[in-house]
Amino acid sequence: MKAFGERVTAAIAEKRSAVCVGLDPRPALLPSDCLEAGHASSPREEEALAEASRIFCRRVVQLVAPHCAAVKPQVAFFEVFGSAGMEAYLDVCAFARGKGLPVIADIKRGDIGTTAEAYARAWLARRGEEAPRADACTINPYLGRDGVIPFLEAASGSGGGVFVLVRTSNPSAADFQDLRVDGETLYLRVARLVRSLNEGHVGPSGYGPLGAVVGATRPEMLGLLRAELPTSILLLPGFGAQGAGPADVVDGFDENGNGCLVSASRSITFPWSGESVVPRTWEERIVDAVTKMRDDLLAVLSAGA
Amino acid sequence: MKAFGERVTAAIAEKRSAVCVGLDPRPALLPSDCLEAGHASSPREEEALAEASRIFCRRVVQLVAPHCAAVKPQVAFFEVFGSAGMEAYLDVCAFARGKGLPVIADIKRGDIGTTAEAYARAWLARRGEEAPRADACTINPYLGRDGVIPFLEAASGSGGGVFVLVRTSNPSAADFQDLRVDGETLYLRVARLVRSLNEGHVGPSGYGPLGAVVGATRPEMLGLLRAELPTSILLLPGFGAQGAGPADVVDGFDENGNGCLVSASRSITFPWSGESVVPRTWEERIVDAVTKMRDDLLAVLSAGA
Repeated sequence: MKAFGERVTAAIAEKRSAVCVGLDPRPALLPSDCLEAGHASSPREEEALAEASRIFCRRVVQLVAPHCAAVKPQVAFFEVFGSAGMEAYLDVCAFARGKGLPVIADIKRGDIGTTAEAYARAWLARRGEEAPRADACTINPYLGRDGVIPFLEAASGSGGGVFVLVRTSNPSAADFQDLRVDGETLYLRVARLVRSLNEGHVGPSGYGPLGAVVGATRPEMLGLLRAELPTSILLLPGFGAQGAGPADVVDGFDENGNGCLVSASRSITFPWSGESVVPRTWEERIVDAVTKMRDDLLAVLSAGA
Repeated sequence: MKAFGERVTAAIAEKRSAVCVGLDPRPALLPSDCLEAGHASSPREEEALAEASRIFCRRVVQLVAPHCAAVKPQVAFFEVFGSAGMEAYLDVCAFARGKGLPVIADIKRGDIGTTAEAYARAWLARRGEEAPRADACTINPYLGRDGVIPFLEAASGSGGGVFVLVRTSNPSAADFQDLRVDGETLYLRVARLVRSLNEGHVGPSGYGPLGAVVGATRPEMLGLLRAELPTSILLLPGFGAQGAGPADVVDGFDENGNGCLVSASRSITFPWSGESVVPRTWEERIVDAVTKMRDDLLAVLSAGA
């Protein structure tokens, strides 16, 4: 298996799309046909909703696969349904990988020692004959390098990737991430650790297995972090429903218009959110939303080139 | 259901034990009878190991229940086995709750918005007629208050608790947690947020739903954090295998010898670790280990009183 950086940069270039589709199957927003199929499968509410989520996400993956560079399924929306939810989540990951899409498991795990090794094995390692469950996962840096290295090692062994939370897109990210330490922000310190750990793991694309999550809602940080993290693919949540637009993300890309995945969840997978009923044409609406986002990103990247 | 602070302080007082038993079922350390029973249950390696872990943890819970105040099952050691692992984990949690033991799900989750709400619902909320899956869970504060409030709200609604990582016990905790912001450490800033969010939720015991994880390996911090967090139950990992002893944890307790859970995993559940074979008497060894730890803590607390 080629290294993660090579696979993702190739996907972005070949598909001319930096779109990463976030799969956050909130039950209240699911189309009724998915919910009905879920309820037909089990009388138990949790199993029914896990199945409805699985059906919806599989259909979204099929719809967006030609138009996006990666998918990012959010495990919390499955974990809530217990073991049935975990089964559905792993099915969605395997289905997307089967379509050739890099899967970023959005799990935001963070632990140390043998515990971190267990998480890393769970998500990034080959298990006997079986492929890893995901191509990459997100992790939290609060525990320091002890919490990063086990994931980096597992990723390096399997051609996988790891996205470290550096500066998130939520309002209270400033509570701790923006605090100043010797005149510079904490998130910059986290970025430095990511950069230093990536050394020695960088492939021909210029990127290593350690990427960084950087909120797209603060464009002034993007250029700074792009410069501080030359070997990290950036993963930018916050596009669409959270307020960031195409012009806000331009500075996250490298000089080749690559090295950056722009993630949107609700605005692509639930473009009818806010309307009183789910339209019958929901599948077309999803294709419209993902192709529009791809084209909008291409347009601003071309304008800047 | 009584509030979490009331239940835990009552358990510590009634059992005269501040011991929290960490359940980290590493497959390489499991007794052979548990492994054999697991392998007899399924030809699939992951299902077999999930079942072996479940059997072992249930037996440990039965053995330690009379002697400890809480248990802390580590989800990573189950997540590695996929949906079978999650099923085993939830079974262990339910089994321990059925024995009257408060269960702290050691999941270290951290996210924001609807995602954090989904995690909080998954672990702390009542689901229809069913009890919450756990009494409390651990969370990571890197995303700021947006990442804490959804858990606090779910906990407040169900009599649950939340332990926020404040200062962890691993060597590289210093990478970020010990950085100085305006002359004080980042972990102290995190502690301040915990304290302020706990306001208005404090019960007759003096404790609120938000607790704090503080490594037992740095005794000089304990007194400081006990004073900064008067309404938080402290959860201290790092005892035993990680090097901290009874004298190191005394300052984590309040004036009543309460308000502190001292967690040990390997030293209690695998006291034969390092020996060439698992002794036939492994169950007795676990009871010896947990009662010794309980008595050692009682002894230093009495000496200090």
